[in-house]
Amino acid sequence: MFESAEIGHAIDKKTFDAEVPALREALLEAQFELKQKARFPVIVLINGIEGAGKGETVKLLNEWMDPRLIEVRTFDQQTDEELAHPPAWRYWRMLPAKGRMGVFFGNWYSQMLQGRVHELFKDGRFDQAIAGAERLEKMLCDEGALIFKFWFHLSKKQMKARLKSLQDDPLHSWRISPLDWQQSETYDKFVKYGERVLRRTSRDYAPWHVIEGVDPHYRSLAVGKILLEGLQSALNRPTLEVESHVAPLGEAVDKLTLLDSLDMSQHLDKDDYEEQLITEQARLAGLLRDKRMRKHALVAVFEGNDAAGKGGAIRRVAAALDPRQYSIVPIAAPSEDERAQPYLWRFWRHIPARGKFTVFDRSWYGRVLVERVEGFCSPADWLRAYGEINDFEEQLEDAGVIVVKFWLAIDKQTQLERFQAREEIPFKRFKITEDDWRNRDKWDAYRAAVGDMVDRTSTEVAAWTLVEANDKRWARVKVLRTLNRALEEAFDKSDKKDRKGKKDKK
Amino acid sequence: MFESAEIGHAIDKKTFDAEVPALREALLEAQFELKQKARFPVIVLINGIEGAGKGETVKLLNEWMDPRLIEVRTFDQQTDEELAHPPAWRYWRMLPAKGRMGVFFGNWYSQMLQGRVHELFKDGRFDQAIAGAERLEKMLCDEGALIFKFWFHLSKKQMKARLKSLQDDPLHSWRISPLDWQQSETYDKFVKYGERVLRRTSRDYAPWHVIEGVDPHYRSLAVGKILLEGLQSALNRPTLEVESHVAPLGEAVDKLTLLDSLDMSQHLDKDDYEEQLITEQARLAGLLRDKRMRKHALVAVFEGNDAAGKGGAIRRVAAALDPRQYSIVPIAAPSEDERAQPYLWRFWRHIPARGKFTVFDRSWYGRVLVERVEGFCSPADWLRAYGEINDFEEQLEDAGVIVVKFWLAIDKQTQLERFQAREEIPFKRFKITEDDWRNRDKWDAYRAAVGDMVDRTSTEVAAWTLVEANDKRWARVKVLRTLNRALEEAFDKSDKKDRKGKKDKK
Repeated sequence: MFESAEIGHAIDKKTFDAEVPALREALLEAQFELKQKARFPVIVLINGIEGAGKGETVKLLNEWMDPRLIEVRTFDQQTDEELAHPPAWRYWRMLPAKGRMGVFFGNWYSQMLQGRVHELFKDGRFDQAIAGAERLEKMLCDEGALIFKFWFHLSKKQMKARLKSLQDDPLHSWRISPLDWQQSETYDKFVKYGERVLRRTSRDYAPWHVIEGVDPHYRSLAVGKILLEGLQSALNRPTLEVESHVAPLGEAVDKLTLLDSLDMSQHLDKDDYEEQLITEQARLAGLLRDKRMRKHALVAVFEGNDAAGKGGAIRRVAAALDPRQYSIVPIAAPSEDERAQPYLWRFWRHIPARGKFTVFDRSWYGRVLVERVEGFCSPADWLRAYGEINDFEEQLEDAGVIVVKFWLAIDKQTQLERFQAREEIPFKRFKITEDDWRNRDKWDAYRAAVGDMVDRTSTEVAAWTLVEANDKRWARVKVLRTLNRALEEAFDKSDKKDRKGKKDKK
Repeated sequence: MFESAEIGHAIDKKTFDAEVPALREALLEAQFELKQKARFPVIVLINGIEGAGKGETVKLLNEWMDPRLIEVRTFDQQTDEELAHPPAWRYWRMLPAKGRMGVFFGNWYSQMLQGRVHELFKDGRFDQAIAGAERLEKMLCDEGALIFKFWFHLSKKQMKARLKSLQDDPLHSWRISPLDWQQSETYDKFVKYGERVLRRTSRDYAPWHVIEGVDPHYRSLAVGKILLEGLQSALNRPTLEVESHVAPLGEAVDKLTLLDSLDMSQHLDKDDYEEQLITEQARLAGLLRDKRMRKHALVAVFEGNDAAGKGGAIRRVAAALDPRQYSIVPIAAPSEDERAQPYLWRFWRHIPARGKFTVFDRSWYGRVLVERVEGFCSPADWLRAYGEINDFEEQLEDAGVIVVKFWLAIDKQTQLERFQAREEIPFKRFKITEDDWRNRDKWDAYRAAVGDMVDRTSTEVAAWTLVEANDKRWARVKVLRTLNRALEEAFDKSDKKDRKGKKDKK
């Protein structure tokens, strides 16, 4: 994979000087078209061998292009805020908006390579990280991002020579190399694991470009030309894209969904309710104060039919807690800044830090519910969302975030009664709008969407809990009890792991 | 100031139960009107004596109102990201957007009170902090925010009794008190300094409300009613406000501005330029790598006539540096999220962490330039902006941020020539729009605005540098040289302080 990047590509100064002006002009033009159209973001990943000209090339690109439209991001040591969140959070918060270009030094690849070379983990986890990167990039591209991945290469001999000359140069000797590159062994490992990364993650939508780093003229022109070509081709792509291949979910089949199997007559009488509510609230308060919570975070997702009582259930959860422990994120239409990002971005923003609890009042499932039913996104978009959402929730779970998801279900008659009641009570008027009545007309379409959603995203990592909500009391207690069980299960699992860890050490 | 909060306000349960339903309904109504209109944010500051029911009251408000529209923020220990920024940054990043309510536990007042009670500083710095809070709140209110400040009070005797009962209660004994409240002395100091804070910062636009904390019914109803009254009055305020009192700047006087005193014939020939450019660039690179930079951050503001060469000057600055060291923030019209916040919010977002350098291509001065000239804000808004901007920059400077501001000036003829040239060069077409020609028609209005801006915001803390930019070479070198001098001066100052500190210790 790196062979052709060790054969001594070089370009003489004269050719270089002759080619640069036109390239620069074209890059500037492309960059401004990118800004003007603001249709997609550009992400440039910079990886490779130390001393192969990564920094120099990025510097030159900033000179050639308009640096005001480029964000160069370094990811060195994680800050404590980053450490308190799932690993991908730090990348999500730095994604460039549509129309802009983000250059990521020290991205997800450097993190996994360093970890593997330093033997912080074995191949199993390394491969998981590689697969995770692949899924992330696929998703970003599907959301419109243009990704360039550059691997700057040097042969071992070239590297040693280069490091020596850098060391002697007072302008460069301040640099600290993150890996001890002086050792041959480091180089060998880095190249070996780098090869594996490139092999697995070079895909049609985001291929790697291996750049021989010895000759500055060659590497600069090569990177510049690849960027230009990619930019121009993406900019000239027609806006009305040909719909990508979509495998329908078989809507023709009249399916029974899990919703049909709910016993909607479940209910609690007032005394039982009050007793159980208080018990479960106290239990929740206790669990969230448990020491073991420091290793976890809690995310509760509330979805449900209109008027199913999401607000009331959330209020009963909140009432159990100190307001400093939780935050509630109501999800409505995305704002301008949010529309300039992949759709999961606005949820990543609100993922709680360790020890904290976030309630989502509606959520990322909007994509496969309202956006699907109302046609706010294409079938290709919502069809791929199931997998993307599963990936997202798995990342949360891997980082200790407990994800609990509720669908509050009522039947059509109950909804009608609640709508009518709302119209009559003055301080509930705000809760009922024309939209609600319109949504009601699409009852069956929503029902099908919910069925597919539950089938495709109720996972071991984050199961859906369907809540029979014709009786509000029943629903509220079930919500609280489910949260409590999820916390207890997660704590038990942590305990077992700890015990196993201690045992293994003995 | 606290006397009337020690006389034993109480409300019996029957009265309480009778009053609550109507209060709740009205609060909910007000809250939803707040959301619907989204005209202003609400900020609720919670301070006072430990054990006086701060947490309980906020919990109750979250139960009474819709918690989905309330953000409860705690400010305990600063994170490392917060420590790397000016102190106010942590509050700015947590401001609620228009239509929402933010409850700030542990706000600027708690920080200053704790510092003073613990003798981390003396009255001088304490008073500075008080004055800073006053200015911040004035600005927030002028930007439309509705601020409630609650001080929960207890007499010393009441506090001791309350702390004892909390300690015996297993549900509360997990709490850690930030100050050692068991000691009488702490209480006395806290009340003494609290009195000073309340006296100085209780203003018409954001008065303090002292709430006697002994009786839960009383304190809850009191807070609820104050909130309701304030919300209703703010919501019913007509949108077309009577313009507040405005003192004009004397535009009738034909003023000579500093711009008139510039020698616009300044220039550099090519050889001098290239030599000086390289020298200054190397100097800048060295200074930004200087160890002393770790205690500082650098902010460079670029303003200037259209076509004055801001972009080119910024490119020459960037070219001196490793792209990982700086970021460039181009300022255009604010986004939706930004419009939901005070106008300085979108600049606070981009203030660099310690050790970093941010270039603003246009800036917060838009308020007194384009917004003034084009009438995008009222005269009252831009007239008060001068003081607000000076406050803002002083906060940056206090935290070690070096602020350097450039006005790139060209004359009218030079601008015409550059506009015409731009229309002819293909890859510069994007740089010239109808807007540019329109702005040119308002040359004199802009000139007056620039004159006032320089007069009113060129301060010891952050002086304006007027750059004669008819000759681009001259301008670029002057920009770089000015940056270098500012860095050197700041480093010298730090050195002197360090030496003084060491001497004082001896």
